[in-house]
Formats: sequence, C-alpha cells, structure tokens
Amino acid sequence: MSDTSTAFAPASIGNLGVGFDMLGLALTGVGDRVTARRGRDGVRIADVFDPSGEPHPVLSRDPGRNTASIAARALWQAHGDGGGIELEIHKGVPLQSGMGSSAASAVAGAVAVNALLEDPLPTRDLLPFALEGERYASGGIHADNVAPSLLGGMVLCPPALLPNAIPLRTPEGVSAVLVHPELKVHTADARRSLAESVSRQQWIDQQGYLAGFLTACAYGDLDLMRATLKDIVIEPQRAASVPCFPAIRDAALDAGALGVSLSGSGPSVFALVATGLAGELALAMETACGAQGVECQSWVSPMTAPGARLEH
Amino acid sequence: MSDTSTAFAPASIGNLGVGFDMLGLALTGVGDRVTARRGRDGVRIADVFDPSGEPHPVLSRDPGRNTASIAARALWQAHGDGGGIELEIHKGVPLQSGMGSSAASAVAGAVAVNALLEDPLPTRDLLPFALEGERYASGGIHADNVAPSLLGGMVLCPPALLPNAIPLRTPEGVSAVLVHPELKVHTADARRSLAESVSRQQWIDQQGYLAGFLTACAYGDLDLMRATLKDIVIEPQRAASVPCFPAIRDAALDAGALGVSLSGSGPSVFALVATGLAGELALAMETACGAQGVECQSWVSPMTAPGARLEH
Repeated sequence: MSDTSTAFAPASIGNLGVGFDMLGLALTGVGDRVTARRGRDGVRIADVFDPSGEPHPVLSRDPGRNTASIAARALWQAHGDGGGIELEIHKGVPLQSGMGSSAASAVAGAVAVNALLEDPLPTRDLLPFALEGERYASGGIHADNVAPSLLGGMVLCPPALLPNAIPLRTPEGVSAVLVHPELKVHTADARRSLAESVSRQQWIDQQGYLAGFLTACAYGDLDLMRATLKDIVIEPQRAASVPCFPAIRDAALDAGALGVSLSGSGPSVFALVATGLAGELALAMETACGAQGVECQSWVSPMTAPGARLEH
Repeated sequence: MSDTSTAFAPASIGNLGVGFDMLGLALTGVGDRVTARRGRDGVRIADVFDPSGEPHPVLSRDPGRNTASIAARALWQAHGDGGGIELEIHKGVPLQSGMGSSAASAVAGAVAVNALLEDPLPTRDLLPFALEGERYASGGIHADNVAPSLLGGMVLCPPALLPNAIPLRTPEGVSAVLVHPELKVHTADARRSLAESVSRQQWIDQQGYLAGFLTACAYGDLDLMRATLKDIVIEPQRAASVPCFPAIRDAALDAGALGVSLSGSGPSVFALVATGLAGELALAMETACGAQGVECQSWVSPMTAPGARLEH
C-alpha cells in the first residue's frame, strides 16, 4: 500500500454516433492524469493544471465541483480507511469538447484512489464510483464515456443494464479519427434540449442501425459498418450547435470514412475508417474544419485503445 | 429443370420479444408446404389444404389474396419464362397465431417456384419476393418472420437494412419453447393499434436491451440474455389481447425461462431456456394456459432450426 499513486484515463467518444447513451470508444494519446496522496481529512483538491502545466484557468478546486474528486470521494467513503486524500489533477482533455473530459477525470480519480485502498477493487468495479462524477457533470447516469475510459476499447453500457458494461470485440484494421474544433458545447445543456419522444419509425430505424452495427463489429463486416454507423435521432438535433459539422462530415465521407458523427454532444466529430486511410482522413477533416474558419486538433486511434492505467 | 417442385418453410417467432420488426427465429416441427407445377397462364392456386389434408375452410384460392401465390407470382414475373404455374398449398401453421403463418406460405411459395426457374436464384435472393407476400398480409415491409423462415436460425433484419438480412450466431444449449393458445390475433389490426411514438427513455431502454441481447447471443452469455430478453414497448400494448399471457409468462419464468414474450403479435407465447429445461418449461406453460381455460399446443425448437428446404 503506497502513499501516492498516479492514474491516467483516456478521452473517449461517447455515443459513437449509433449508440446514444450506450456505446463508447476509448481514444489514445489524450487523457487526464490524477495523482492521489494521503493527506488530511476528507478528499481535497491540491491543484488542477491545464495541459501546459499552468494552474487551470477554469476548473474548480472545490472537491464537490470536480468530477475527479467526486468519484474519488465516492470510492474513498465506501472503501477508504477514514484518512484524508489530496488530489492533483492534470487536465489533458479539452473542456466541453465532446471527448469525455469529465469522465476521464472521474475515472482517473477513481483509479488513483483505488491504488491507495488496503484492498483495491477490480477495475470494472470502479465504474459506479466514476459514474458518480459523471452524474455531477452531465445530470444523468450514462456510462458511454466513463466505461470506455475505464475499460478501454469499445464498450456497450445501456443505462438499463448498469453497472454492467460489456467490452466488445472490434474489427481489425479499423481506426477512429477525432477532430476537435475549438468550440465549446455544454453537455448538460445539450441534453436538456433533446426531444422527449421519438416516432416509432425513428425508434425502429435507429435501433436497427445499432443492432446492425454491433453485428458488423462482431463479424468484422465493414460493408455493414458503413450501412449502419448512423444517428438519425440525436445528430440532427445537435448538429446546429456545431456549424462546421456538415463540412467536416462531407470531407470525411469523401475521404473514405465508414461513417461519421458527433462525438458525444459535440463539437468534436469522429469517423471510423480503414486504418490505412486514417492519416489522410484526419487531414481531410482538419482541412475542412479550417476552411470554415475554425481552428482544430485531431487524433487517430485504434479501436483497441487501452483504458485507464496506474502509472505509479 | 423439373416440372414440379415442393418446398417446406418453417413457422417462426417474429420480434423475438426484444427486437420488434427486426429479429426473428425459425422453429422446427411446424411449417407450410407448397407444391408448384407448370400449368397454364399466370400463377394460379389449384388447392389449399388444412393440416388434416382437407380443403382449407378459410384461405382464399384467389392468387391475389394468398401470400404463397403473391410471393410466387412476384418471383415468376421477374424471372420466369412466361409460362404458367399452379400451386398446391398445404397449411401447417395455424392462422393468426403469431407463428409467422403468412410468411411461411410466402417463403414456401417462393422457394418452390424458384426450383422451376431456368436459373434458380440463391436462397437469400428470394427474400424480396417472399416479402411481397408478407406485405399483403401485414400491411408493411418487415422481415422478422420471412427472413428466419427462409434462412433458418435467428436472423437480424432491420427494415432500414432490407433486403439485407443477417443470420446470427446463437448460444449453444439454448432452445425456444412456443405455446399457441387457441385464440386468433389479426397482425395488421394489431399493428394499427400500436402507439405512433415512444418516449426517449423507452427508446433507449428497449434499444439497450436489444443491443445487450445480441451481444449476449454473440458471446454465449446466458446471464446477459436473461437480463435483456425484454420488450417494454410493444408487449404492454399487445398483452391485453391475450388474456392468458400473464399466467403463461409467470409459469415460464418460474420454470427457468431466460425470458418470455409474445411471438409476433400473439397470441402465441415463446420462451428461451436452457435446453435441459425445455420439456419441463413447455409443460408448465401449457398447464398455465389450460388453467386459464384456453386450449393450446406447444413446440420445442433449437435456436438453430433449419430454414426453408426443397423437398423434391
């Protein structure tokens, strides 16, 4: 049992377009890092740093208002020894980006504190604690960022089955490309503006796409992935808040994407694509975004990105 | 190229509870049989027999009003040689039973006529022709009976992906039990009475169950099948037309069913269950049905039941 631990948790693509609130994919190359140290009473935040290592200009040090500390506190209260914990949070995921920023912090907080427990829990048992953080950020219990950030890869996590979350096999030779335009979308606001009902036809069509997509992934059928990686319900309601989306989407499809949609509630846009085309696709999406006068950054990631890890 | 052919097509469980309009399972031991013979102009019906071999008391001999001849005619008009076809239809599937009676006739008609073509089509290419028959019977294009009757086993066939229909792997050691209470439900009427919209929560929950069920089948996870074989949207709307349903359902769950729901629009009720418990389960469901004062018949079937076959 150590007195300090550091965990990294990756960013993720929530919804993965076709699976609103129930499907997510971990990313590589971008995530949050949380160091937990034994300290005085309760769970406190010592520091929050931005990606350049400066004190974060926006995020609160109030432990009741940061997903890392909320998750850490939930775990510590349930399984800790009554001592105190101090957290140091290094944000790597851009805020309000649709890249699962709040989930990455929550997962990293839970994984870091778990290492300080006398009997650390198995990784998958940390999900409910990380979800406590996500609940604060988004106003609901959905695990489509938390579960892939914790477990890695592509994860199915329907709200009705939580805390069960099922890591899925993914087809070989397919990668994810994510482009983050420099805009901000507030997840909880984006959720409140969604229609409260869908037509029977929309329900059946969207459910059919998800069923087909999961089958395509299980069987490695890229033609079926292309036919099913669609969001006909949520994307049309959210696309207006990301004016550059249509241009990025069209560029992605022209460059060979199997499908493209908003990541979470946006503004980030993701595509799945045969790995050999991923670099070119990222460039095409970035170029299209830039042509709309919006700065952006992109990441390319296998569908088998690892989940959270303890660094020391 | 022969002058006569006979095809058998099995009954099926439409929707399979969890996958309204997009999931179906073939049954063994019950189906329709159609003999096609070269005859005079066009596609005609020579005879329709009931299961006891008597002239059928209900079904029309008008080729525009029987799904077998409608499917046969669609295929023959597209690929036939301009000669005539006479059909002899042996109904084995009870009418308005929720067992895919109209689909079995349509599939048997298409398969029988296919054998008389100079260049018979591959089996899966018969789906659109069989669907023409189903469209007449139910007023919509959904393949959840036609596809399993044609292809066998469990088939995913979302309307938005048709004519693509995807045979799915099923877990070993699981069987289907179907109980047919002696009531009739008219499919097209049952469909018209369904609500035109669902809440976002219902959509997400039901879609989550289907996604989980397909994953459970792909991975052979019976606990997950048990957690996901549910229909929270359609079954509550239809159960009132099958008064004996709650008693049969409860008996099935008590006897170890993984899940239980209406087959198609009812009145038949199906359950999935570990194969070792299937006989006992069928008995329990029959007993519960009988205790409601309703005669019934039951079938037990593996999840790998074969699809339509040419008999000679």
